[in-house]
Amino acid sequence: MTKTITLAQGNGGAENNELITKVFYNAFKNEILEKSEDAAVIENGKLAFSTDSFTVSPLFFNGANIGKLAICGTCNDLAMMGAKPKYLTCSVIIEEGFEVEQLEIIVNSMKEELAKNEAIIVSGDTKVVPRGAVDKIFINTTGIGEILYSGISSNNISEDDLILVSRDIGAHGATIFTAREGMDMHSNLKSDCNSLYPQVKALIDSGVKITALRDATRGGVSAVLNEWAKQSNICIEVEEENIPVSDEVKGICEMLGFEATNLANEGTFVLAISKEDAAKAIEVLHKFVEAKNACIIGKVTQQYPQRVILNSSWGTKRFLDTPTGELLPRIC
Amino acid sequence: MTKTITLAQGNGGAENNELITKVFYNAFKNEILEKSEDAAVIENGKLAFSTDSFTVSPLFFNGANIGKLAICGTCNDLAMMGAKPKYLTCSVIIEEGFEVEQLEIIVNSMKEELAKNEAIIVSGDTKVVPRGAVDKIFINTTGIGEILYSGISSNNISEDDLILVSRDIGAHGATIFTAREGMDMHSNLKSDCNSLYPQVKALIDSGVKITALRDATRGGVSAVLNEWAKQSNICIEVEEENIPVSDEVKGICEMLGFEATNLANEGTFVLAISKEDAAKAIEVLHKFVEAKNACIIGKVTQQYPQRVILNSSWGTKRFLDTPTGELLPRIC
Repeated sequence: MTKTITLAQGNGGAENNELITKVFYNAFKNEILEKSEDAAVIENGKLAFSTDSFTVSPLFFNGANIGKLAICGTCNDLAMMGAKPKYLTCSVIIEEGFEVEQLEIIVNSMKEELAKNEAIIVSGDTKVVPRGAVDKIFINTTGIGEILYSGISSNNISEDDLILVSRDIGAHGATIFTAREGMDMHSNLKSDCNSLYPQVKALIDSGVKITALRDATRGGVSAVLNEWAKQSNICIEVEEENIPVSDEVKGICEMLGFEATNLANEGTFVLAISKEDAAKAIEVLHKFVEAKNACIIGKVTQQYPQRVILNSSWGTKRFLDTPTGELLPRIC
Repeated sequence: MTKTITLAQGNGGAENNELITKVFYNAFKNEILEKSEDAAVIENGKLAFSTDSFTVSPLFFNGANIGKLAICGTCNDLAMMGAKPKYLTCSVIIEEGFEVEQLEIIVNSMKEELAKNEAIIVSGDTKVVPRGAVDKIFINTTGIGEILYSGISSNNISEDDLILVSRDIGAHGATIFTAREGMDMHSNLKSDCNSLYPQVKALIDSGVKITALRDATRGGVSAVLNEWAKQSNICIEVEEENIPVSDEVKGICEMLGFEATNLANEGTFVLAISKEDAAKAIEVLHKFVEAKNACIIGKVTQQYPQRVILNSSWGTKRFLDTPTGELLPRIC
């Protein structure tokens, strides 16, 4: 039987990792790529370099649109390596018949978000394809950042670190899901889509020792923790009751049987911070209104290396695995 | 009436330029972007940075496939700024159901072409979208190059320069057209798709004075010459009989009423070279089998600033304009 690509291979979960490893890493292999960080570190550790294509549907949703998302997504990947976003490229693929006015709204959102990162678009590409060749508009942004804080790596997490999360989780995934399904929640549910560089800059300026940072996009917090557990050969133990989840996201999870830890975020990051600096990091994050729920969610042990354990508030334990199967496609 | 995006706005011609200027440049404006070079020059002139999304249809055609094209396209843009392609990102958007085997062929072509540029992929992104959201596969590549020869700019061309072309023109556009229309030409027609860095490196090593280089992709040689005439405020006069066109491309142009100068190329570049070094540049290019037809095609005057004049072999003159209207979409 001919093997074909499945939606599960593009969801940020286990099958996605397998496709990336088998097809792309095998062909392109090199030391930088194999580090599997949020952004590549190049030019003797001076620059970070990262790419993302955005295919989100719907294009406009509560809290953001594809334009804001396209800038946040790439700038956040740079920030996660301790880099200040500096230069971006922007490549758009537009379907014939797309409204110019909508394009202008999207481009203006990009402009606003660039300003928050003090970054500029220096090169671009525009393709228009016939109806049916693309669903409305896809945007690729690729960015170069200047590394302000060296040594951030998801390969170096140890028992000296605590695991933190920057805010309540799952809002982006839940927002896209309800928008897609036409569910009017009459609620305050909105995407967390946001530029994280200001928070990272504040952490760096405060002098806390940062081991690793990763924004919990596709695959959610579960994917990040599992990647870290594997990359650093550690066990991560998280306390379920400490993981902040908004009432709106909780409601959707209960109704639909989702796990908040599997839902995508676009302005929420997981941190591995030196034990002695964890309280200070929380204090720094709490100065940002969007990070007012930042907290410690877990610790690093050697109990089950390469696995993540979730301690429930009922006293039970279970493994928290990388999400598998067909999660929501076109989340970002 | 609601204004919508047209195919003509994505063809590399006049309407494309207008869309880019009005919507993107207006929002993102900055000095680097406004230079409108093939690649942005950043980090105090040390690095070049360029992006391209590839949406070519069909994916496989005589001479190349979307994978080879995706590496050549971005590496060539870097080479056109006198840069050695160094680090690339690769972001793919794949339609659910796409055959893994086809993906592997594409990725292997990318690998082979990267080797010719001595460049590596350091970061990537994979999105899988449901059937109908994308036509098979789109690839974005974004590259960073190390500038080996400074000062290349399409804003500095003067009467001291001659205009050269590196090989016979129009092969890529003609190949895609015949493949798309199911025309079996029983001919040697194949895309010129090729990495240009080796030719540029040889030119740099030879010590010739290079004023400007540009690969003649969408919009063909006509678009490049018109961009240069405007950017440098000069008149470019080209001799029609000196422009190399293969018999296969000539045949297709005659049959279908195309102009070879408007057809896309993916391994052909236009050069503005100091008069005293033009012969030497030709000599260097002739060492490459693919550039055996490299020749001088025109000169720079002040007769009609910002316009391009085509002197026909019949002794008549006419303006060669930027192509307008609906050229072939999805050429690259």
